[in-house]
Amino acid sequence: MPTTLTLFDPEDMDDAPQPPLTRVRMTVAYDGTKFHGFAVNPGVSTVGGSLLEALERVLRHPVDLTCAGRTDKGVHAHGQVVDFATTEGIDLDALVRSLNGLCGPSIAVRDAEVVDEEFSSRFDATFRRYRYTIHNAAHPDPFSTNTAWHVREPLSLDRLRLACDPLLGTHDFASFCRRNTRADGTDAPTVRDVLDARWEVDPDGTLRFWIQATSFCHQMVRSIVGTLVEAGLGKKTPGDILGIIAARDRAAAGPVAPPHGLSLWEVGYPDPT
Amino acid sequence: MPTTLTLFDPEDMDDAPQPPLTRVRMTVAYDGTKFHGFAVNPGVSTVGGSLLEALERVLRHPVDLTCAGRTDKGVHAHGQVVDFATTEGIDLDALVRSLNGLCGPSIAVRDAEVVDEEFSSRFDATFRRYRYTIHNAAHPDPFSTNTAWHVREPLSLDRLRLACDPLLGTHDFASFCRRNTRADGTDAPTVRDVLDARWEVDPDGTLRFWIQATSFCHQMVRSIVGTLVEAGLGKKTPGDILGIIAARDRAAAGPVAPPHGLSLWEVGYPDPT
Repeated sequence: MPTTLTLFDPEDMDDAPQPPLTRVRMTVAYDGTKFHGFAVNPGVSTVGGSLLEALERVLRHPVDLTCAGRTDKGVHAHGQVVDFATTEGIDLDALVRSLNGLCGPSIAVRDAEVVDEEFSSRFDATFRRYRYTIHNAAHPDPFSTNTAWHVREPLSLDRLRLACDPLLGTHDFASFCRRNTRADGTDAPTVRDVLDARWEVDPDGTLRFWIQATSFCHQMVRSIVGTLVEAGLGKKTPGDILGIIAARDRAAAGPVAPPHGLSLWEVGYPDPT
Repeated sequence: MPTTLTLFDPEDMDDAPQPPLTRVRMTVAYDGTKFHGFAVNPGVSTVGGSLLEALERVLRHPVDLTCAGRTDKGVHAHGQVVDFATTEGIDLDALVRSLNGLCGPSIAVRDAEVVDEEFSSRFDATFRRYRYTIHNAAHPDPFSTNTAWHVREPLSLDRLRLACDPLLGTHDFASFCRRNTRADGTDAPTVRDVLDARWEVDPDGTLRFWIQATSFCHQMVRSIVGTLVEAGLGKKTPGDILGIIAARDRAAAGPVAPPHGLSLWEVGYPDPT
């Protein structure tokens, strides 16, 4: 159960972390089923809000929490990365245990380490890797209700694989991006560099789509999956994917796949030098 | 969400299935988290109760439901087997779809077939195979909260494996069985034939204990797992297991492992001749 804001007494909190400061990076896994996404959003339960509240309870100072990728409502993470500043000398093992006690069982901090003071989980990331899971069978699976999209009609693995090849490389992915108008009225850029995109099959038949890019625009992975599934069902040809990319038109792509099949699997950073 | 008994109107039900009769065998998977076990138990939500109510709603006659193994509260199944009699000529595909609509998402009927009129899922079973899952890591895993026992202290796989070898073969497992006094005042027999018992490790480090026997007495798998884990932690030696079996005394064994790591994986039957 996520802790609620009413449990926290701001009078117990100091004004700011005491110098000398240190920056901490944490890897976090979460079952996003019960959360309204990652981003802190007063009045609703979010992963970031739960983590932030727990951090401020334990550290007793205001925390500015940055994450590598703000996942949507219902989306999971096995390897979300966050960072924040705190006072030097913190006992990281004790911090992780406290956070897991406060935020569990839906959120688990997997590790924490001190990083360079200038580190940013968002801006220093060299890639994000997502996994999308599909249970492709006539009957549902009670054990993946919240973690896999149940597609009843048989998908052709050959067609899924052919359809994902055109995604590789640098393209304008406007057809797969939810439109994002910036403050100055222009659209946010939608050119992205897809480093890897592949389908794998677990021994039990579960389908896993892996996609890696330097970054993704909003709903890009789920829009791609929804479109690839149409190709896998025979509603689109693998060749259509090239035309969909070229169209730079959201209406050209397939529907957005449901959030519960998606997990932010890993975020990459340069090796420390 | 399991359906509740109040939804069903008994006036819609005929007195008995109409001859000629046919017997149907179904394989059923369920997430046991929210159920008080399999056995029908008025006033509480059980897997058998939910299945039975759905069957009677769809078939519109009273159903006598038999299962291969009555799992305890919180225990899961990937391959529970049940059987019942109904009127000949039933559309099994339609039945399975209706049941999954009524019982899902926690319960899923995986298949249904017509079997010999004399078939019994309980008495014709030649083996039951259970799987017990352990998440052995310092930090919890949000995705296996309801399906794996989280053991924080490191387990020695070598010790787990050495400790499970003495279980193989025919023994009196009284030390691992919850005492079951029959109507005549004598204890139910506790001699069982263990056909297979082994530990496997998933690529992600998850520990799986597989055990197969012609049948099991009550709490036998969980008592065995609780005892093996004590050996894996160094609290018992693998050699102690022989003595625990020989003692035929429940107090000699370790604690009962929690139910949520356990799943009834498969039930075997003779090939039809």
